[in-house]
Amino acid sequence: MSDFQPTKTILRLELPTDPRWVNIAEKNIEEILVDHAYCEQKAATSGISLIVKYPDKTRLVEEMTELVAEEWSHFERVLAELKKRGFALGRNRPDEYVVELSKHIRKGDKRERQLMDHLLVNALIEARSCERFKLLWKNLQDEDLQKFYYELMVSEAGHYVSFVKLAKEYMPVEVVDARLKELLAIEANIIANLEHRPDRIH
Amino acid sequence: MSDFQPTKTILRLELPTDPRWVNIAEKNIEEILVDHAYCEQKAATSGISLIVKYPDKTRLVEEMTELVAEEWSHFERVLAELKKRGFALGRNRPDEYVVELSKHIRKGDKRERQLMDHLLVNALIEARSCERFKLLWKNLQDEDLQKFYYELMVSEAGHYVSFVKLAKEYMPVEVVDARLKELLAIEANIIANLEHRPDRIH
Repeated sequence: MSDFQPTKTILRLELPTDPRWVNIAEKNIEEILVDHAYCEQKAATSGISLIVKYPDKTRLVEEMTELVAEEWSHFERVLAELKKRGFALGRNRPDEYVVELSKHIRKGDKRERQLMDHLLVNALIEARSCERFKLLWKNLQDEDLQKFYYELMVSEAGHYVSFVKLAKEYMPVEVVDARLKELLAIEANIIANLEHRPDRIH
Repeated sequence: MSDFQPTKTILRLELPTDPRWVNIAEKNIEEILVDHAYCEQKAATSGISLIVKYPDKTRLVEEMTELVAEEWSHFERVLAELKKRGFALGRNRPDEYVVELSKHIRKGDKRERQLMDHLLVNALIEARSCERFKLLWKNLQDEDLQKFYYELMVSEAGHYVSFVKLAKEYMPVEVVDARLKELLAIEANIIANLEHRPDRIH
């Protein structure tokens, strides 16, 4: 394995996850995998929504098309990990973290601003997933899953970068940077106030 | 090319499309391709919804996971055909055909019955797409697109069969056959009453 390290500096998240999360998560691996499967499903669904909403943005459509295929292949892989362990896909539960963060996508008639917010919120979800996957990679006992989460961590880091770059296609760089800074603070605040959930990715 | 012929006997559709449709469709190839892209997107979205709604049905989850990946790869391919011709993905328009047909998915507390209806409606949409793709394959002047629609026709025929088989996993064969017969009549009736639309797949 390479030395890839998504540090705070790369992904800029302001509040690291309590390192105890992973130990408790390991005890809930079935629920973690089910929750993870739905994270991938939601990421695919969100990519599809962006295409349907902004079909005139060619670059966005192309990148989202690729992203949806990738997220869906992750969904398939999580499903295979569940099956290997004799678990079924459980029910989807509302993802409070995503719900809270999505409230900060500003509505109204500024179409590009809304798109930027949407892309940056997606970037932050990828960043937080990446941070959690890093913890799983570094700390899980199950070697199979360690490798799996290493790969997915790298992929999510790539998505974070793509979302931020894409936002800069449609809005001035300094506007995007300023909004990202605001959203990073909001994200840290949401994480700090969420109930500790060792059976969830977020 | 093989002799594959999705005849009325295979797909059981009761009302063949007016053969003039394809000639007019060829003149609207940009709109046909855009409409087709959204058909693939809707098929993928519908597969995802079935997974989220029935995560306890393992066989369904597995087959839908595969189907979504396939529909999404079709979406990618339609997008590439658009790009090749210098067209962009236009706006999504409501698909009256699908809306009308979906009204026959019975709601209520009979979960398996609703699932059966949903699967059979999806089967019929695949069958009708298959029938239209056959016309495009047989009649388009553009050789590239001919090949493309030949391949997709075969794929949609496979999906039709899978949806009907899947329905029979969850409901007695005779119940499924009877409901399929009803829905075939309903589908023919919808097609007969839809305004003639040479810029749409359905």
